[in-house]
Amino acid sequence: MKSKGPFEDLLVIDLTHVLNGPFGTQMLCDLGARVIKIETPGHGDDTRTYGPYVNGQSLYYSFVNRGKESIVLNLKDNDDRAIFINMIKQADIVAENFRPGTMDKLGFSYEELSTINPRLIYASSSGFGHTGPLKDFPAYDTIIQAMSGIMMETGFHNGPPVRVGTSISDLCAGIYMFCGIVSALYAREKTGKGAHVDIAMFDSTISFLEHGLMAYVATGKAPERIGNRHPYMSPFDVFNTKDKPITICCGNDSLFSKLCQSIELPSLIKDPRFLTNIDRVKNQEQLKKLIEHKLKEHNADYWINAIDVAGVPAAPLLSVAEAMQLPQTQARNMLIEAGGIKMPGNPIKISSYPDPKERKGAPELNEHGEILRKEFS
Amino acid sequence: MKSKGPFEDLLVIDLTHVLNGPFGTQMLCDLGARVIKIETPGHGDDTRTYGPYVNGQSLYYSFVNRGKESIVLNLKDNDDRAIFINMIKQADIVAENFRPGTMDKLGFSYEELSTINPRLIYASSSGFGHTGPLKDFPAYDTIIQAMSGIMMETGFHNGPPVRVGTSISDLCAGIYMFCGIVSALYAREKTGKGAHVDIAMFDSTISFLEHGLMAYVATGKAPERIGNRHPYMSPFDVFNTKDKPITICCGNDSLFSKLCQSIELPSLIKDPRFLTNIDRVKNQEQLKKLIEHKLKEHNADYWINAIDVAGVPAAPLLSVAEAMQLPQTQARNMLIEAGGIKMPGNPIKISSYPDPKERKGAPELNEHGEILRKEFS
Repeated sequence: MKSKGPFEDLLVIDLTHVLNGPFGTQMLCDLGARVIKIETPGHGDDTRTYGPYVNGQSLYYSFVNRGKESIVLNLKDNDDRAIFINMIKQADIVAENFRPGTMDKLGFSYEELSTINPRLIYASSSGFGHTGPLKDFPAYDTIIQAMSGIMMETGFHNGPPVRVGTSISDLCAGIYMFCGIVSALYAREKTGKGAHVDIAMFDSTISFLEHGLMAYVATGKAPERIGNRHPYMSPFDVFNTKDKPITICCGNDSLFSKLCQSIELPSLIKDPRFLTNIDRVKNQEQLKKLIEHKLKEHNADYWINAIDVAGVPAAPLLSVAEAMQLPQTQARNMLIEAGGIKMPGNPIKISSYPDPKERKGAPELNEHGEILRKEFS
Repeated sequence: MKSKGPFEDLLVIDLTHVLNGPFGTQMLCDLGARVIKIETPGHGDDTRTYGPYVNGQSLYYSFVNRGKESIVLNLKDNDDRAIFINMIKQADIVAENFRPGTMDKLGFSYEELSTINPRLIYASSSGFGHTGPLKDFPAYDTIIQAMSGIMMETGFHNGPPVRVGTSISDLCAGIYMFCGIVSALYAREKTGKGAHVDIAMFDSTISFLEHGLMAYVATGKAPERIGNRHPYMSPFDVFNTKDKPITICCGNDSLFSKLCQSIELPSLIKDPRFLTNIDRVKNQEQLKKLIEHKLKEHNADYWINAIDVAGVPAAPLLSVAEAMQLPQTQARNMLIEAGGIKMPGNPIKISSYPDPKERKGAPELNEHGEILRKEFS
């Protein structure tokens, strides 16, 4: 039988909750690891109470906990602590995303748990990390987006800053937690020793600032918001047509010339305002007006076809619904079913492992509690 | 001497260019790997010609190629191909982000290179992946953002879709490439065999859709844009003050009550429109107006202080410049210097390895050409 994935020999004890930690540990699970999620007495992970719901199951919870086992443990209760310690003795990885200090107060710091199991990889994810003056500052995704500069980078020149329409700071921290864990796992093969991985949503978002951070380093000033356009190329933006917006991406003079032909504006090619890319960037507002004036004559489909035929990169702006219905999404298994619920697939495609269209769903609260208590007593 | 990182025993042959591939291979380099970047004759990686520049060096290039070695090879020339093949024989990893089919035409498909070196991990990153009907479609970040739904998710209800103010599709694909490589490396420790990792910018972005995809799965319809607010909690949004916008994040009734006290609007606590979170989400526009009306009496700093003292999560919207000047950014080494240029640090903090404030810069074109030609002849 083919292996489930590169991590099928690994045991992960997962204390993470809400979004960033569970996203990271689910990546381990998707690639074969056994992930035991420890939930708090009561309603368990808070996200079990968040909508939207399908078949009575929270999508928020299901999207980042598929394939895991669930046990409720009270980490302040001595019997439950003994079970947890037994798990740690056998575990390869423990992951947590409490506020810094919480694990220490429970007596489960890295120093303490690595004494019990020196091979343990102990991964922490938090808003600002376990060091520095802001380590105790609250860490909602929106707060990190606000303080990292990414909201001030997103939106139009004359409009307000815009939150990225997804929890980018949470999700980036989740991936980086996975990256740190797997890097430490590889090292453990050589050294036999575990390590503490300390990931911050704030650091993770900084690593994604790109153009805005380049502009700051070059000028010492905060960059301006530039809407949907490219900072250094033109025309490279979103344009309105008769019905819907489309994007057109011209990276050089030859593509610009082909674009002008394909949208029946050949006079722009020799227009002194638009001769070179530098000219076009300088006069991009005028150029955009001229292009949009023409594009309003026909619908998006008409123009996409004409522009693509000319060999110029152009695409429609698709809703999430339309994106999910693309044959490409199906061909890549990027909308799979887990526990009867549609959700995103695993984007890490490795030739030596299967990439199933159906996966195990997320567990009910304490679904594996009884059997796990026996196993780790 | 302390090890440079978990990957210091690894040799990476890096054919990637522009953004997503180099971002992924730089992560390997930051964590100790030796990365040899192969550049094309002429001007090398296109991004060497992109601004902005500091000390004559492209920040675009420098931000994602620090610490690498550079050699120019013409992969259509027999002598240069022989050098490349010698590199592949010794390499652990080869990474490329050409259009699907380009490596095959060069005679360097996974099948061919893995015959030469069965332990080779061969990582590909592309716009839509190496399979499916869109595999040959052009793959600029803006095109992927447009087609994945993430642009349609970003922005205000009554406004146009907004491009995420950073190349999220490129950067996500870069990280996932790193994830795939390191997962395959761990597997190789057990199996002795390499693998082909196939990452798509499109898949990577789908895995980041979060709320928008949940809404689609729950309703079958495209979600609406919701600006800066939280879909299921209120007040949890960006609010204007007398001078600058701030974010306030109230996840429950108790925080709402504290907020109302701290902004001197205690009457809202018992207002029947705002009694529960469900009420507040339903009437969030009215609530926002009342809060903003009050917040306009003072500056952002005044309110942040008052609200934070009350224990309610709130934060200023910082520009990239302000974010970089936070003591937290320094404390976490998230603005480092490499080759004399300031750039983002490494967000993967692992206790057993150093996290230097200064790193080697990006190479000049063909800087290591002569010495590498000797080594791999």
